[in-house]
Amino acid sequence: MKKATKTIGNTVRIGVIGTGNMGSAHVRNIESGAIPRAKVTAVCDIDPTKMEKFSGDYRKFTDSRELIRSGEVDAVIIATPHYFHTTIGIDALDNGLHVLTEKPISVHKADAERLVAAHRRNPKLVFSAMFNQRTNPQYAKIRKIIQDGELGEVTRINWIITDWFRTQYYYDCGDWRATWGGEGGGVLLNQCPHQLDLFQWMFGMPAQIRAFCDIGRFHNIEVEDNVTAYMKFASGATGVFITTTGEAPGTNRLEVAGDRGKIVLEGTGGPIKWLRNTVPTAEFRAKMPEMWARPEAWDVTIPAAGGGEQHTGILKNYVNAILDGVPLIAPADEGLNAVELANAMLYSSFTGKTVDLPLDPAAYERHLKKLIRNSTFKKAVNHDTSAKEVDMTASSTAFKK
Amino acid sequence: MKKATKTIGNTVRIGVIGTGNMGSAHVRNIESGAIPRAKVTAVCDIDPTKMEKFSGDYRKFTDSRELIRSGEVDAVIIATPHYFHTTIGIDALDNGLHVLTEKPISVHKADAERLVAAHRRNPKLVFSAMFNQRTNPQYAKIRKIIQDGELGEVTRINWIITDWFRTQYYYDCGDWRATWGGEGGGVLLNQCPHQLDLFQWMFGMPAQIRAFCDIGRFHNIEVEDNVTAYMKFASGATGVFITTTGEAPGTNRLEVAGDRGKIVLEGTGGPIKWLRNTVPTAEFRAKMPEMWARPEAWDVTIPAAGGGEQHTGILKNYVNAILDGVPLIAPADEGLNAVELANAMLYSSFTGKTVDLPLDPAAYERHLKKLIRNSTFKKAVNHDTSAKEVDMTASSTAFKK
Repeated sequence: MKKATKTIGNTVRIGVIGTGNMGSAHVRNIESGAIPRAKVTAVCDIDPTKMEKFSGDYRKFTDSRELIRSGEVDAVIIATPHYFHTTIGIDALDNGLHVLTEKPISVHKADAERLVAAHRRNPKLVFSAMFNQRTNPQYAKIRKIIQDGELGEVTRINWIITDWFRTQYYYDCGDWRATWGGEGGGVLLNQCPHQLDLFQWMFGMPAQIRAFCDIGRFHNIEVEDNVTAYMKFASGATGVFITTTGEAPGTNRLEVAGDRGKIVLEGTGGPIKWLRNTVPTAEFRAKMPEMWARPEAWDVTIPAAGGGEQHTGILKNYVNAILDGVPLIAPADEGLNAVELANAMLYSSFTGKTVDLPLDPAAYERHLKKLIRNSTFKKAVNHDTSAKEVDMTASSTAFKK
Repeated sequence: MKKATKTIGNTVRIGVIGTGNMGSAHVRNIESGAIPRAKVTAVCDIDPTKMEKFSGDYRKFTDSRELIRSGEVDAVIIATPHYFHTTIGIDALDNGLHVLTEKPISVHKADAERLVAAHRRNPKLVFSAMFNQRTNPQYAKIRKIIQDGELGEVTRINWIITDWFRTQYYYDCGDWRATWGGEGGGVLLNQCPHQLDLFQWMFGMPAQIRAFCDIGRFHNIEVEDNVTAYMKFASGATGVFITTTGEAPGTNRLEVAGDRGKIVLEGTGGPIKWLRNTVPTAEFRAKMPEMWARPEAWDVTIPAAGGGEQHTGILKNYVNAILDGVPLIAPADEGLNAVELANAMLYSSFTGKTVDLPLDPAAYERHLKKLIRNSTFKKAVNHDTSAKEVDMTASSTAFKK
């Protein structure tokens, strides 16, 4: 294992691995100077034409192993297709590099455990995940309200996040998209890792999941594009998580009922609405000697404006964690939970059964490998977008009200 | 079978059977003159003290069979505990009386089929159900929007109707409440028949139901007070129905996604909000050659104000159907669907399996009878409200925004 910190003075030398849409956006972001004390010193893509657009003063690699061993970088950003987050992440950590990985951290739980184990072997390295929606002030505030006990015990959660509309054209761009072999899933693995991470961040992990996933309901794809998941927590709280890439205009509405009332966040621009009970519901329910009485609720508006720093915020935090030891906004080890939730939803749907958490990682890996092995889906890749620049900010609901 | 129509001139002589809270409200409503051409000529309750409050010029019975055979009435209103809706309804229909029954029309599907069969034997009799929320202009308008094809094919429904808060005191009033033997269920049989009826009225019946019911989660009762139900339609549409009597302040929010956008109704006061796609979603999804494009949606506000005529509207319609042959707002035969939905949700939860509709009525009846037989729940009836008048309008969300 190499030495963990080998920055040049006060600058982190970053290698970006995978220079498709997202990786290119990160390179541009750092080049723009938006991330103090960070410098791109190397890029890597298996397709060299994808790196032609870069004119910066850095080395170009077509093999991540060479970049990792080049001595040119202190830290990497992994923005490859999902499966490689695990393999490249492990290689980078075991070679003494800090890692920031795109979401999901892995495709399935067994891989996520392998990746997290590599970090456990190299605990001094910074290991961050691009859960940029953690920078949305709304979610952070709801999390704090719950952790502070302001809302009392959470009793019910309903998150409708159907605001991930995708055209068939989107799926036809790139042969890895929306395949078991290429992504290991659909909306749960590509779009929803954000919300699944936020979900477990705010509410913790449920004890059971029963989900219903429709395969290619709205698109010609072999993976899920429509999901309804029911969750039960050890506390007795229930949750529903609904997502799809087929609906327009979609909904992004999070409702959280607790003993002190109900919080609703629509969209991500804020504010947070809270109908706050003056008397805790459980106490009122048990003690009020009237048939039709209801606790008085105050209409509270909690300020939480704006979209947060998003990718820039996570990149800055990554650099500050490396140089100054500040805590991470999104430690990648926690990214295992979003993977587990996605896997459990798919597994429940495929088996037609309720899945108890923690999920058996080996069982799910076998299931997924079988799906890959048995896949007969012929992808029609109609559009060559390999050299096309796409504005990735449009891919995220984080920027929209 | 007696002659179906035997009104005195132009007035319907009505017997109200069951003079608890709801039945008494109907007597008062008719006595007030709000229902033209209707007259209460008889009342019936097994507990004669419940009829002491009535000073009107009508016969009092303690046996519904005597009222039905008395020759004093052309029509009955049945407002007894649920199980008797079936037995008294059949007796009334088979003795030539028109019937308006409180909801649910029966406790379980087999009983509902028996009741509907009695109407089929006596097809000229008017057989109506007290689904007063069908008079809410909002639901009628959403139904029409869907039936007219304005919204296109419905793809997803989400109804959170947790606005049925009840105190423990409520459940402790009356020994039949919230027991398998007395009500045959909890929130699904007592509070939600309204929404279950509206659901099938607007969207039709699903093909499958998987539901999760919590028994006595928020109250000391032996039946369900917290429900999450997933539904799948033959069309592929999915639905979620969430209800509880434990939450405050609750939610009443109906969201319907279709090929032409999304309709949202919050509360029941209106208006209806519609984000209307200028291009159908399916067409846009399939044909738009762009990765991130979304169909343009117009923000449409559909006027539908007020709470409708509610109980008065259903009572007037009952009389007009008897005297003038006008169509019923809520034919009781259709009430079978709400019973079937409630039963299927409970059955799915108890068996831990997805229930295919139509539900096997005999299987569910056996299941319910077993629950009744095996019940060991000791109800603590702490409060004598037998002589207490209660304002039933407070029991319905129909009157609240």
